[in-house]
Amino acid sequence: MTLSPIPTPTATPPDILRCAYMDIVVTDLAKSREFYVDILGLVVTEESDSEIYLRSFEEFIHHNLVLRQGPIAAVAAMAFRVRSPKDVDLAEAYYQELGCRTERRAEGFVPGIGDSVRVADPLGFPYEFFYATTHVERLAWRYDLQGPGALVRLDHFNQVTPDVGRGRKYLEDLGFRVTEDIQDKDGVTYAAWMRRKDTVHDTALTGGNGPRMHHIAFSTHEKHNIIYICDKLGALRKSDLIERGPGRHGVSNAFYLYLRDPDGHRVEIYTQDYYTGDPDNPVVTWDVHDNQRRDWWGNPVVPSWYTDASLVLDLDGNPQPVIERTESSEMAVTVGADGFSYTRKDDELAGFKLGTTL
Amino acid sequence: MTLSPIPTPTATPPDILRCAYMDIVVTDLAKSREFYVDILGLVVTEESDSEIYLRSFEEFIHHNLVLRQGPIAAVAAMAFRVRSPKDVDLAEAYYQELGCRTERRAEGFVPGIGDSVRVADPLGFPYEFFYATTHVERLAWRYDLQGPGALVRLDHFNQVTPDVGRGRKYLEDLGFRVTEDIQDKDGVTYAAWMRRKDTVHDTALTGGNGPRMHHIAFSTHEKHNIIYICDKLGALRKSDLIERGPGRHGVSNAFYLYLRDPDGHRVEIYTQDYYTGDPDNPVVTWDVHDNQRRDWWGNPVVPSWYTDASLVLDLDGNPQPVIERTESSEMAVTVGADGFSYTRKDDELAGFKLGTTL
Amino acid sequence: MTLSPIPTPTATPPDILRCAYMDIVVTDLAKSREFYVDILGLVVTEESDSEIYLRSFEEFIHHNLVLRQGPIAAVAAMAFRVRSPKDVDLAEAYYQELGCRTERRAEGFVPGIGDSVRVADPLGFPYEFFYATTHVERLAWRYDLQGPGALVRLDHFNQVTPDVGRGRKYLEDLGFRVTEDIQDKDGVTYAAWMRRKDTVHDTALTGGNGPRMHHIAFSTHEKHNIIYICDKLGALRKSDLIERGPGRHGVSNAFYLYLRDPDGHRVEIYTQDYYTGDPDNPVVTWDVHDNQRRDWWGNPVVPSWYTDASLVLDLDGNPQPVIERTESSEMAVTVGADGFSYTRKDDELAGFKLGTTL
Amino acid sequence: MTLSPIPTPTATPPDILRCAYMDIVVTDLAKSREFYVDILGLVVTEESDSEIYLRSFEEFIHHNLVLRQGPIAAVAAMAFRVRSPKDVDLAEAYYQELGCRTERRAEGFVPGIGDSVRVADPLGFPYEFFYATTHVERLAWRYDLQGPGALVRLDHFNQVTPDVGRGRKYLEDLGFRVTEDIQDKDGVTYAAWMRRKDTVHDTALTGGNGPRMHHIAFSTHEKHNIIYICDKLGALRKSDLIERGPGRHGVSNAFYLYLRDPDGHRVEIYTQDYYTGDPDNPVVTWDVHDNQRRDWWGNPVVPSWYTDASLVLDLDGNPQPVIERTESSEMAVTVGADGFSYTRKDDELAGFKLGTTL
Repeated sequence: MTLSPIPTPTATPPDILRCAYMDIVVTDLAKSREFYVDILGLVVTEESDSEIYLRSFEEFIHHNLVLRQGPIAAVAAMAFRVRSPKDVDLAEAYYQELGCRTERRAEGFVPGIGDSVRVADPLGFPYEFFYATTHVERLAWRYDLQGPGALVRLDHFNQVTPDVGRGRKYLEDLGFRVTEDIQDKDGVTYAAWMRRKDTVHDTALTGGNGPRMHHIAFSTHEKHNIIYICDKLGALRKSDLIERGPGRHGVSNAFYLYLRDPDGHRVEIYTQDYYTGDPDNPVVTWDVHDNQRRDWWGNPVVPSWYTDASLVLDLDGNPQPVIERTESSEMAVTVGADGFSYTRKDDELAGFKLGTTL
Repeated sequence: MTLSPIPTPTATPPDILRCAYMDIVVTDLAKSREFYVDILGLVVTEESDSEIYLRSFEEFIHHNLVLRQGPIAAVAAMAFRVRSPKDVDLAEAYYQELGCRTERRAEGFVPGIGDSVRVADPLGFPYEFFYATTHVERLAWRYDLQGPGALVRLDHFNQVTPDVGRGRKYLEDLGFRVTEDIQDKDGVTYAAWMRRKDTVHDTALTGGNGPRMHHIAFSTHEKHNIIYICDKLGALRKSDLIERGPGRHGVSNAFYLYLRDPDGHRVEIYTQDYYTGDPDNPVVTWDVHDNQRRDWWGNPVVPSWYTDASLVLDLDGNPQPVIERTESSEMAVTVGADGFSYTRKDDELAGFKLGTTL
Repeated sequence: MTLSPIPTPTATPPDILRCAYMDIVVTDLAKSREFYVDILGLVVTEESDSEIYLRSFEEFIHHNLVLRQGPIAAVAAMAFRVRSPKDVDLAEAYYQELGCRTERRAEGFVPGIGDSVRVADPLGFPYEFFYATTHVERLAWRYDLQGPGALVRLDHFNQVTPDVGRGRKYLEDLGFRVTEDIQDKDGVTYAAWMRRKDTVHDTALTGGNGPRMHHIAFSTHEKHNIIYICDKLGALRKSDLIERGPGRHGVSNAFYLYLRDPDGHRVEIYTQDYYTGDPDNPVVTWDVHDNQRRDWWGNPVVPSWYTDASLVLDLDGNPQPVIERTESSEMAVTVGADGFSYTRKDDELAGFKLGTTL
Repeated sequence: MTLSPIPTPTATPPDILRCAYMDIVVTDLAKSREFYVDILGLVVTEESDSEIYLRSFEEFIHHNLVLRQGPIAAVAAMAFRVRSPKDVDLAEAYYQELGCRTERRAEGFVPGIGDSVRVADPLGFPYEFFYATTHVERLAWRYDLQGPGALVRLDHFNQVTPDVGRGRKYLEDLGFRVTEDIQDKDGVTYAAWMRRKDTVHDTALTGGNGPRMHHIAFSTHEKHNIIYICDKLGALRKSDLIERGPGRHGVSNAFYLYLRDPDGHRVEIYTQDYYTGDPDNPVVTWDVHDNQRRDWWGNPVVPSWYTDASLVLDLDGNPQPVIERTESSEMAVTVGADGFSYTRKDDELAGFKLGTTL
């Protein structure tokens, strides 16, 4: 199935500051609370029987994550903060020109967030744009409250979409800039990292069946904070929530860990990428066969990391249908009998590290 | 002496991205090279008998620091990168409207930097604005070259000026935003932190006799990198280059260390402040008598840190005359017989920690 | 006052394994609990209205610290664990030969400890020797319980005594080995570090008016754990409990922090000294004028660290009289108008760092 | 094949202090030097065209590792330091009573080591015992020489032997104490950790075809030092030298990384186990099916880690024949179609994490 290109609107895009929060549906709120609050230590801004509003320690807006009890685990919204109230108007007009369904609510869709627009974007994702928010205490100095694995910032989203090139062009029109990507020599793009704030990304596109949400990522200050989270999961006999890592990414150069929440929503813990705020920030392109692209140490990417992702909802709360990727799959071209990867580009014998040991 | 207010120009200010490099005069280039290259491990982009161009490991522009052999230790330029070539024109016009002397060089003032304007700004500092620069390898992934105290970014400048309020207003007009400041209950401002990129500052104003340069700051990834620098200085029997710290700042919440180079230029090593990129980022105001404002652990600020700073040059290379601060001195109001500080605001007996032990 | 030498007993000394616990009297148990449990996070093994038994996370014996409500802040016992039950007999006989008062209790002096002997040793300290103890859970793997500043081991004691050479000879007879010391060129010893287990010390002798207890030290795994404790004290507005540090010791090469508990008892947090278990382990002697001996970074030792210490009790619970040190004082010979220190031995101008800045 | 029990000698065993050095044969000395010196940063005490003597930064004996050019990659000796010269005599007599071949050399087998005895021990390993050694500079304070992944101590050896129970009894007779082991409910022992110094082990026995050397382990101070080694290997495009990890061990609670040198000799980098020096130190027994026993985070043990190991030499320099293990294989019972592991003991569905994702 060939997806048609997404036109560039004539409207001015909103000035997006950063990824701000994700609104996710969970099927057992108590279990999710245990994961996000008791284990990961996110800060509860407010909560009810059906919803919990969580933030990271250095955040001053109302929340970075909404957990919402519901029947199907899915993503209800991926929200970006814009520079000013009028940028919400710009966002609404921009998506209307794209022919997307939009919904504007002056009082916001969730507590702590004011005038917002939600859209079903051309890739099928439920994006939200807002400026107005309730300020809450920035707990950066509250070391008495911060545990050894303290999550200090929301760092980024990651979205699965069948045609990364198509999605990238759409996000570039919207004002995102690519910082890194993964390609092959035939020009297939397997993934692209796109930023508004001065980090490697506010969101990334991962090639695969979509629209689906690949993960949401929170930052720690140091690497030992991430290691602690693993240690704690071991102590709680929940190490099977660790899906991949910890490790060092090639892309982004960050230290990482991937967890799965009780519904299977993937959460990355991430630290120490680099400054990207200059307009001529060099784009880094990785060869899909480079075995250090996703893990700098060559440790294998587990297949579930490639195949699993969360459904996303339309504006009525129904799951968006998932469209299959038709281009090459990164897993297929790099893992197993048909795929290959190299550690050194000119090695005669390309070898996938896991392949040589398992 | 009352300094007259600096008018707000009608011209559009340049869109400043970030502090980019400092050009400093050192009196013994070999000794300075030992300090910045052999000890601190900054990367040499290029060098000659009279100049050395240095950068941090994650930098892709030509340099973050110029060491220039000369007769008097001083600062020749504090350079900011702007968003586009036309912003250099805007900067030139902006300062001309302010009545400042400006000098434009299409070929740049130093290797690796193109079209630039240097100005003697209203506070007496030699500011430079440029966009064009030679890209060099970003060594973020070159762990084989990075030592245990690797400096990965230029973080900020810090300037001493007699009237912080006057300087702050000028920098706000130029597009900087205040993130934190230190005041007393009478409204005297002792220091202000001002940012363009999404960190706590690109430059700060410290109240004192000026114009003088207080310090230049580089970032590490983690706190242990900073501790290592101290350990190495001990091993080299150069611990007397450590002026203050390591410690945790109250202001900025960053972990810090202050060193003095062979000419006495102050260098801060800094890590882990917080994201400030939202327009409504909450400003933090500290009471000058709060003993945790400059060191969160209440460790004393050594007097030299308050009194010493580097001369700055005018566009002819002559030192700018230093104007005395007439407002209260932070050192005087907080240290010693006449000053006081408190750990807990309501303590009856306010006590400066050093005072009770020394 | 000249103290007579302590004779070498003919009796076999007990085989001491390690420093095991300290029994201290505090004047406000609730305040002490807040300090040791709520702030430092030591593990409560058991407690009553008048006593609290605390251990570190990797400990399997009943406790490393007893807090005991009492009228005068002091040390009731410094307890060492011996290799076998019969070593308690050896200890008793050894001190009886020395003419010291001893008290043996088959049921132990405190809960969790069995057959023990307490002695008023020749230096005036209340030493205890025991083997029998209740095993408790070693919480090494319980990362869910360990906070960011987790204290994982009891590391050492430190005792103040007027004549370090006299005390050292006594402890060497008892089986301790010196690992490091501080001397001057006239042969005065200012301090000595003495070990049984394979670390730099189980106890140290600090020259000064004594017998007094200088500090008890707990270990963390990493340096950031110690930094966190400072950060937390700042967050709690209790930074005035930080007396000295954090820093890197010259002696021991460990990273350190000194705190004062609500009664003024000094607690060190310590990490990363080196293996000393070989019989020919090289002894390191430091020059008292070497400004990096106590802080490798040359940061000043605050006077209270030299002058303050805790009273120790005799076996009836009365404070031991304090005998003045008559040899040179380390503080006097290194700090202030009459003292001097150097960073580099051959520098013409010896300079105490604090002296040049304050 | 049933191996006959090893009798307990009547002779007094030597008093072993600690594992001290390993003497290994490498087939390309230049490549090995690159690995151990250029990449891992071990300190060269001395070297010739055919041998290199290396030590860790906190070591004061001549070396911890000998690299010796030879035709077959193998281990020539595993050397333990004993408490006194007479313990060398004891060792010689002890093994002679066991009927083992011994070779005594008053001048030592290698430079820097004096009077020694080498034995072909009952398990087929080339053990050496010595006391006399040349002292060299302990570089603990030489931070100027220590890189970001500095190896500060030799921690332990690990040996592969078919019958762990048989080997354990022999080592207990020799004076080692078990700290941890892995068993199944039928009483099969899969591995045992045995110590002399106050850490979890000086050597360990791993069940498998032997005698073979499983690995030699060096310590770092902190976890980030180990992560750096991975990062550096990535930067050098040698990430395929990383065999397993980094991770947290269940057994020992240490943070770990396994590398393979150019000959396939396995090197562990290790940090932060716990104190074990008390005679009643609690032994920890792990269930072989506990998926957190070897990696606390449940990350898979790669098969090569179970199957590969280095040959060991007899006293003539010929490889010892390898005897097959007849008891259950840990790999077989825990990995793949026939094996299983659990994260939580009572889970109905036991699942090996890798199994569910690959």
